Amino acid sequence: MDVKAYLSGYADGEGCFCVSINRSNRHKFGWEIRPSFSVSQNKDRANVLQIFKQNFGCGFIRPDRSDKTLKYEVRSIPNLVTNVIPHFERYPLLSSKQRDFELFKDICKMMAERKHLAKEGFQKILNLAEDVNVSGKKKFLRKEIKI
Amino acid sequence: MDVKAYLSGYADGEGCFCVSINRSNRHKFGWEIRPSFSVSQNKDRANVLQIFKQNFGCGFIRPDRSDKTLKYEVRSIPNLVTNVIPHFERYPLLSSKQRDFELFKDICKMMAERKHLAKEGFQKILNLAEDVNVSGKKKFLRKEIKI
Repeated sequence: MDVKAYLSGYADGEGCFCVSINRSNRHKFGWEIRPSFSVSQNKDRANVLQIFKQNFGCGFIRPDRSDKTLKYEVRSIPNLVTNVIPHFERYPLLSSKQRDFELFKDICKMMAERKHLAKEGFQKILNLAEDVNVSGKKKFLRKEIKI
Repeated sequence: MDVKAYLSGYADGEGCFCVSINRSNRHKFGWEIRPSFSVSQNKDRANVLQIFKQNFGCGFIRPDRSDKTLKYEVRSIPNLVTNVIPHFERYPLLSSKQRDFELFKDICKMMAERKHLAKEGFQKILNLAEDVNVSGKKKFLRKEIKI
């Protein structure tokens, strides 16, 4: 069986391409933009998370906030660009979550090129991030983030 | 991409091998045993359910009770035995949900052989069904079902 295709199917159901935006004094313009790919699972079935970690060769498995699940997560921009994104380019999602992935990919690539450190790039990333997971809750609306 | 492996990955996250047991005057021994394979998804991402239906060549897509999601479901024993089970034998689940599938398979095969119409077979199926989705809620405990 093609485990890589299997993992894309699993991620289509249970995975998340997220771009969280939080206030931060340590980051330029006072905001941190943090893309992450994550998959959560109940502890008794967490072996799939190990398969993700082995396959991608990066990321961490840790208890989720709820404490009832474990979460596999990749936050490092170099790892996202080098390991995670090429996987989903080769094995694309078949649901509309693919659109989240495409936006996520553009954001990660811009950040890898350090475009978020210039005002124009930063604003472009914020605009793209606004359209990722539109059905989910956002901590801050785009219009609240002024730089 | 191997779509069949993808579907197994998706089913590992979002699919359910269920064996529901309900009181029924129309069934022998006063109980109906109903195995089903199902996958639910939000309406805006329901195209994956269409891919399941096309791939398995059977089953139905309908609104779930919650009305916010759609559910792809196969209930027919011949379809389960001929279309669904061979798929998951060829593309097995990588999480412990595989154990549910193995029990589910045994139950469907016994029912295809009409073993549930004899008391011994019926009781054996009830015993197997008790171990499917042990973490989920059961409408009736095994000990409540007397024949």
